[in-house]
Amino acid sequence: MVQYSQTHLDASFAALSDATRRGVLQQLGRADASITELADKFHMTLTGMKKHIGVLEDAGLVATQKIGRVRTCKLGRRALAQEAAWIEGYRKLWDARFDALDQIVEELNRKDRVHE
Amino acid sequence: MVQYSQTHLDASFAALSDATRRGVLQQLGRADASITELADKFHMTLTGMKKHIGVLEDAGLVATQKIGRVRTCKLGRRALAQEAAWIEGYRKLWDARFDALDQIVEELNRKDRVHE
Repeated sequence: MVQYSQTHLDASFAALSDATRRGVLQQLGRADASITELADKFHMTLTGMKKHIGVLEDAGLVATQKIGRVRTCKLGRRALAQEAAWIEGYRKLWDARFDALDQIVEELNRKDRVHE
Repeated sequence: MVQYSQTHLDASFAALSDATRRGVLQQLGRADASITELADKFHMTLTGMKKHIGVLEDAGLVATQKIGRVRTCKLGRRALAQEAAWIEGYRKLWDARFDALDQIVEELNRKDRVHE
């Protein structure tokens, strides 16, 4: 299986575990925005939004730049490729596991019919 | 965009934000296991492993069944389909955003050349 940076996955999945942070990522996918604009859009205090941006920045998902008094946020260079790959790998395991269980059940049913 | 259950995504991404819990999911993708077996495998106390299993169970990713004194864990019915879809949607936004920025840079470069 692919080797992932575990710390890295910890940080990005934790960053994704909040509806506001997911919303911010989708919003920045459309256009860059200042922290004030994001706070307004998500009906949140500036302090609350700053915390969320901090979490996204630490996970490498958002980059910010301060020009004068305005801090502008944009998407980071990380596109959740490892996260997508991890989930994909898991989904394959999951499918295989349930297929295997289905086969066992089918086998048991067949044996039942033979014994009837 | 697809409508997701936000609470549901919060819980599953939070469940995925820990290397041990991701390891447990992969392990259960291979075979069912008791909490004791999982605690041994991941060099963890029984109490620690119980907590992790509780988080995975609350997120619908693991199902447990107690027979006699042994609690057996297996994969839950949820295969991270919504999580995969959310990340996929985001990756498309991300690609489009960086493509758009690349085009702007290219356009600016072209204008520079014209003015030279």
